[in-house]
Amino acid sequence: MFWSKYFLPTLKDVPVGTEAISHQLSLRAGLVNMLTSGVYSYLPLGLRVLNRIEQIIREEMNASGAQELFLPVLQPIELWRTTGRDQTLAEIMITFEDKKGRTLCLGPTHEEVITDLVKNYVQSYRQLPVTLYQIQTKFRDELRTRYGIVRACEFIMKDAYSFDRDEQGLKKNYQLMYDAYVRIFKRCGLDIVIAEADSGVMGGDMSHEFLVPAAIGEDAVVKCLICGFGGAIKVGQEPDQACPQCSAGKLVKQVAIELGHVFQLGLKYSNAQQALFLDEDGKQKPIVMGCYGIGVSRLIAAIIETNNDVHGIIWPKEVAPFDVEILPLQVSDPETMDLAGQYCRDLEQAGFAVLVDDRDESAGRKFNDADLIGIPQRITIGKRTLKEGKVEIKNRRTGETLTVVKENAVAHVKNSLRN
Amino acid sequence: MFWSKYFLPTLKDVPVGTEAISHQLSLRAGLVNMLTSGVYSYLPLGLRVLNRIEQIIREEMNASGAQELFLPVLQPIELWRTTGRDQTLAEIMITFEDKKGRTLCLGPTHEEVITDLVKNYVQSYRQLPVTLYQIQTKFRDELRTRYGIVRACEFIMKDAYSFDRDEQGLKKNYQLMYDAYVRIFKRCGLDIVIAEADSGVMGGDMSHEFLVPAAIGEDAVVKCLICGFGGAIKVGQEPDQACPQCSAGKLVKQVAIELGHVFQLGLKYSNAQQALFLDEDGKQKPIVMGCYGIGVSRLIAAIIETNNDVHGIIWPKEVAPFDVEILPLQVSDPETMDLAGQYCRDLEQAGFAVLVDDRDESAGRKFNDADLIGIPQRITIGKRTLKEGKVEIKNRRTGETLTVVKENAVAHVKNSLRN
Repeated sequence: MFWSKYFLPTLKDVPVGTEAISHQLSLRAGLVNMLTSGVYSYLPLGLRVLNRIEQIIREEMNASGAQELFLPVLQPIELWRTTGRDQTLAEIMITFEDKKGRTLCLGPTHEEVITDLVKNYVQSYRQLPVTLYQIQTKFRDELRTRYGIVRACEFIMKDAYSFDRDEQGLKKNYQLMYDAYVRIFKRCGLDIVIAEADSGVMGGDMSHEFLVPAAIGEDAVVKCLICGFGGAIKVGQEPDQACPQCSAGKLVKQVAIELGHVFQLGLKYSNAQQALFLDEDGKQKPIVMGCYGIGVSRLIAAIIETNNDVHGIIWPKEVAPFDVEILPLQVSDPETMDLAGQYCRDLEQAGFAVLVDDRDESAGRKFNDADLIGIPQRITIGKRTLKEGKVEIKNRRTGETLTVVKENAVAHVKNSLRN
Repeated sequence: MFWSKYFLPTLKDVPVGTEAISHQLSLRAGLVNMLTSGVYSYLPLGLRVLNRIEQIIREEMNASGAQELFLPVLQPIELWRTTGRDQTLAEIMITFEDKKGRTLCLGPTHEEVITDLVKNYVQSYRQLPVTLYQIQTKFRDELRTRYGIVRACEFIMKDAYSFDRDEQGLKKNYQLMYDAYVRIFKRCGLDIVIAEADSGVMGGDMSHEFLVPAAIGEDAVVKCLICGFGGAIKVGQEPDQACPQCSAGKLVKQVAIELGHVFQLGLKYSNAQQALFLDEDGKQKPIVMGCYGIGVSRLIAAIIETNNDVHGIIWPKEVAPFDVEILPLQVSDPETMDLAGQYCRDLEQAGFAVLVDDRDESAGRKFNDADLIGIPQRITIGKRTLKEGKVEIKNRRTGETLTVVKENAVAHVKNSLRN
């Protein structure tokens, strides 16, 4: 991709009214744009990050046997009345009456819809277990939107739902999802704290939260510096109450962003919605359910929040919008541009995503923008160095720079990206 | 993928209240499920078709230089007031007031939002031209929902927007999109009629519709059997008025589904929203715009409507949810199942998507379901044929069956799929 033709507008200054570093950087690096408070557009660079995160999630969900589908945003309110959540979630639910006279809501979550769907098709224990998931835009009537895409009115979630014959099956599926979550967050470059949590309006017996300690966030965690155990702190709770399992007791308290939540729902929805199956013993029983959410758009903010320096974003390799940025400094020099084009072709052929900053801008502006958007590997082609047959390679994370013979640059970069 | 573990519920009977064959087949083949009138869930098989269509669209859009982004569903009504379309589109627009006291609507289209976005970033002619697109769920308060996913309240669209310095640039981008549309519909297996059309509430001077003649639809086209020229028929128009360019005059009238529409918008939005740029001559001018839509979810219905027989769907190769279905008839026979597994691995390694019907069902049920879901190539492993070292290959479209030595089956299937 050539920057001169790419819709990637960067901002030099910190936008007013932004407090979180992830909010500032996601606006400055041309990832997102605010349409109105709590509502964001993803610009091409931001969409690339979103796609890479979604790809990781899909791979790990599919690997644990979950199947992807796509549920509607519009939901009839009658469905929510069956579980009473038209009341318990009324605060954040957006509802309206349509021309047909139906009261519809914009799905803030999909337990009722998926239970209704599965109930229509599953009659026998032979059709169980099944785990279904989707990646979809969800809506909340959020009064206190905050931190950009961290707390928004419109956001992207991955929500999965498991359906089992019995508690034992649920526990197995719950563990599969739990393990998938650990892998997903690790691949996204995040150091996660997992905490037992309240089930809240979701219902059910057991639940775990996946949180990342950050400079911002609406949750708090404690982490033991000795045993490594972590826990979430509820409002009004003391740090040591949150970590009863920790006897080493070197507890540090930190603000955190909640990124994932898994629930053993049990029978709440299947009882309320009469989602029954005929078991092997000839008896009708309610399906045993679990649900598993990840805040996908929020993940972007969490990754930036924990991967940045004073110059900009430092993308972890697996979620970077591009793998390599090439900086030909003098765009009027044919030799420089030929080499940039050659590097781009070679790296793309090897399967890497490449951005060439071919804009007619000063070297300073290009370096600053490169640091800001944070592509892991950078190749700088300067006229003076090129005369000696050399180019410069820089690793955005470590800051290491290396001057190499121009013929070796691609091999060097490939090697760094594969390690 | 093994059907015994796959969430793919097929229905034997035609669902009540369905008139269109595409509606019946998409429900019966387990592609979609109706949540409430005009609102559908995509089951795993339907989502696979959707993904393949979206992939084709992305490839062709990217090839013509368009860049993907992702705009919000929620839009402030103030933005619509600038163009007066809060009035002209009021009939189909879903609006509500949120807790912050804002009036928001669910985007039925995105001209205002994207003009506002581009206006924030583009100041100079150097930043033009640019074409941006998205694939996104859109909403209409539709009183007369009809034909399943053909006319729904919630549907998926690809919408693209071009931004140019002048009319000449617009015409060039318009032609690029027009050509991309021709390629997209061809790859989807559709025989399209292109017609000059009214610009309607979109505004602008020139527009073309892309329609597919079908047994259902809310538009009509005429096509000349001699010269091949086609045109759309407006309400109250005579067939020969719709095709003035056709002198051969062997006109046939047909019902049709509108799948795409391209518009030369001109200055309507940039004037109303003050989207200006500084041109090379030092003058401020409004950006010249075009917009380009495709009904993505509606495409699925159109493909089924024009690719089916009495037994079910006949997927065109490029959009089929799977490339090959393998039918091991006797699932208790280890030799049969080993061979099915081997075929599946070999074909998946070659990059094909494979569904193995390993359900313990009768051969009749499996054959019927295979015809219903319409995978292009089928390999049947029957115990009797297998004793002679042979299996049967069937082409869903032509109906041709071929009994081949079992070692040659994969090569045969690969060959058919690549031609």
